[in-house]
Amino acid sequence: MSRPDFAKCKGLVPCIAQEADTGEVLMLAYMNEEAWEKTLATGEVHYYSRSRNALWRKGGTSGHVQKVKSIRLDCDKDTVLVLVEQLGGAACHTGYKSCFFTEIAPDGDRVCSPLIFDPKEVYK
Amino acid sequence: MSRPDFAKCKGLVPCIAQEADTGEVLMLAYMNEEAWEKTLATGEVHYYSRSRNALWRKGGTSGHVQKVKSIRLDCDKDTVLVLVEQLGGAACHTGYKSCFFTEIAPDGDRVCSPLIFDPKEVYK
Repeated sequence: MSRPDFAKCKGLVPCIAQEADTGEVLMLAYMNEEAWEKTLATGEVHYYSRSRNALWRKGGTSGHVQKVKSIRLDCDKDTVLVLVEQLGGAACHTGYKSCFFTEIAPDGDRVCSPLIFDPKEVYK
Repeated sequence: MSRPDFAKCKGLVPCIAQEADTGEVLMLAYMNEEAWEKTLATGEVHYYSRSRNALWRKGGTSGHVQKVKSIRLDCDKDTVLVLVEQLGGAACHTGYKSCFFTEIAPDGDRVCSPLIFDPKEVYK
């Protein structure tokens, strides 16, 4: 079974989370070796939080866990793609379904992903 | 118009390329400020090659250019998502449609993206 080349990436590989049912790209975060192992062992996506310097079980606070449907590695083994079921319907801490909710356009930014929850109600 | 926070990312932001029509995630590479500007100006995706330390017009050798359909930024402004039309039908230098052609499974890896071209015929 292949695994990311953590040594090449100084211990942290970028991981893209994509909604399995719709194909919407939800977020990008980073995995260290512990996060990778926890993800495989539990079937729930774990990342490494660079701001908190800690293992991060996605949805640990909000309940918006990401259930693993498929894990894929790229040709260089330096990026992970995980297809998920996103519990709660939103991946972004702002309440939008996708962290990529801002579409760039010459005449100004546009919101391109639905607002699912009010962060004030979820993070109390 | 928003732009990535290059300073926060030491000059390089990860960029996910996704096929606009199908939603298939094709690859992840990096953009510096020049690559970002060239992408906006030309409508063709440009990256920064970390191995060659140079601006990289995707498809410059193979002809497999990525035409920009939509550009999105994440909530932290430290990742780019670009929806593209992939000319030639494949993003990966190995000939597979997606760089993420390896699905991880307990009983061994599986190929999960079609082989589109023979690299020996494309890179001569």
